[in-house]
Amino acid sequence: MLSHIRIVLVQTYHPGNIGASARAMKTMGLTDLVLVNPRDFPHPEASRLAAGAEDLVDAARVVGSLEEAVSDCVQVIGASARLRSMPLPHFDEPAEMAESLVDHAADDPVALVFGRERFGLTNDEIRCCSHQVSIPANPDYGVLNLSQAVQVLAYETFRAWRQRPDSGFQAARPAQDRQPTREQVGHFHDHLSRLMQASGFITQPHARTEEQLQALFARAQPSRKELSLLRGLLSSLEPDAEG
Amino acid sequence: MLSHIRIVLVQTYHPGNIGASARAMKTMGLTDLVLVNPRDFPHPEASRLAAGAEDLVDAARVVGSLEEAVSDCVQVIGASARLRSMPLPHFDEPAEMAESLVDHAADDPVALVFGRERFGLTNDEIRCCSHQVSIPANPDYGVLNLSQAVQVLAYETFRAWRQRPDSGFQAARPAQDRQPTREQVGHFHDHLSRLMQASGFITQPHARTEEQLQALFARAQPSRKELSLLRGLLSSLEPDAEG
Repeated sequence: MLSHIRIVLVQTYHPGNIGASARAMKTMGLTDLVLVNPRDFPHPEASRLAAGAEDLVDAARVVGSLEEAVSDCVQVIGASARLRSMPLPHFDEPAEMAESLVDHAADDPVALVFGRERFGLTNDEIRCCSHQVSIPANPDYGVLNLSQAVQVLAYETFRAWRQRPDSGFQAARPAQDRQPTREQVGHFHDHLSRLMQASGFITQPHARTEEQLQALFARAQPSRKELSLLRGLLSSLEPDAEG
Repeated sequence: MLSHIRIVLVQTYHPGNIGASARAMKTMGLTDLVLVNPRDFPHPEASRLAAGAEDLVDAARVVGSLEEAVSDCVQVIGASARLRSMPLPHFDEPAEMAESLVDHAADDPVALVFGRERFGLTNDEIRCCSHQVSIPANPDYGVLNLSQAVQVLAYETFRAWRQRPDSGFQAARPAQDRQPTREQVGHFHDHLSRLMQASGFITQPHARTEEQLQALFARAQPSRKELSLLRGLLSSLEPDAEG
């Protein structure tokens, strides 16, 4: 359950990053935000950058230690740009991390922990974690802005969740127009052939050329309406019977 | 090739979003930024939020129309939060979009196009596109900040690229410590058994309990050094022979 997934930001320096992180969370269905010793909070910048996610910022819990923030969690994943010497189980791929996180979140709280903008997490804080994850990035410039790291990992988490058969997530998609029957498609093919011969493009039935064009139109998957449109076009292109 | 992948921002309102987008691009190995009629550019906010990606901002091409920005591209993917009435081929999943984009980028320029913060892309601009993509999000609050949409799609693009066998990308990972041999693991198991009996935890060899503990330690995949550490611990826990 997405509501079991907590985002923890440790000693965030820029209040704007708190707001932008809240926005990132909300777009991906997450709501539980906890701040450990934020440097400057509350702050108008946090509200401003939260845009429509101010409710998450207003409801954010502020605590004095990471231990306090995650004591009830059954999985705590530290997000870190830098590999640490402490060999916690490590996810190289955020997508794999997300599968695991969503699994563990079925019945209990779990947490994704982000460190300071410049310094990440301390070794003591990593000891509060059960796992680590890093976002594969450009070896020459690989440190994402804090709120963008939150966005990427929240995106992967939402994806792991919505791809589960029990999530009930429905991608918004426009109603599909009705497809033509094979008979209607056949009429279109005949019309196209007649036009190609009438125009002199081919002088007799030419299977290969006709098949190629039929296949091209098939790839476009025209709806019934579109097929009508095409046939109207073909009709208008027919040379006059009178010449 | 990642260098063939162009990011196009159309009429960006906030210069800070240009800088943050440049940073997002650079962390994911992208470098080609084109701005169509940015409202206020150049601007100190663009440079400030670019952080270490100022070079991308400074090198960004500024043009007067989207047509101009993408005329040489063989694939142009419009990123849009809102589904349009025009039925372009549409990627529901950014990961699928990224596979296609990286495929097409082998020999020719391709583009990912982002619209205005509030209004997205106009219908005329969508006509410059060959495909559309949207980022699946919270149905109640699904519009990502512009630079965060850039971050997510750039992340997917980089992932599609690095997972190709020919990319040569090496995930930074710490050197793996040497693993123990089966014989060494056997010694450890024997030591553990002897300790459990000597301490009275079990009164005779108890296969099930021993197997469970052996399996637990196996899941931890101790290195040789860690196994030594464990054996040192076991030795220190042995009750004195003298009682």
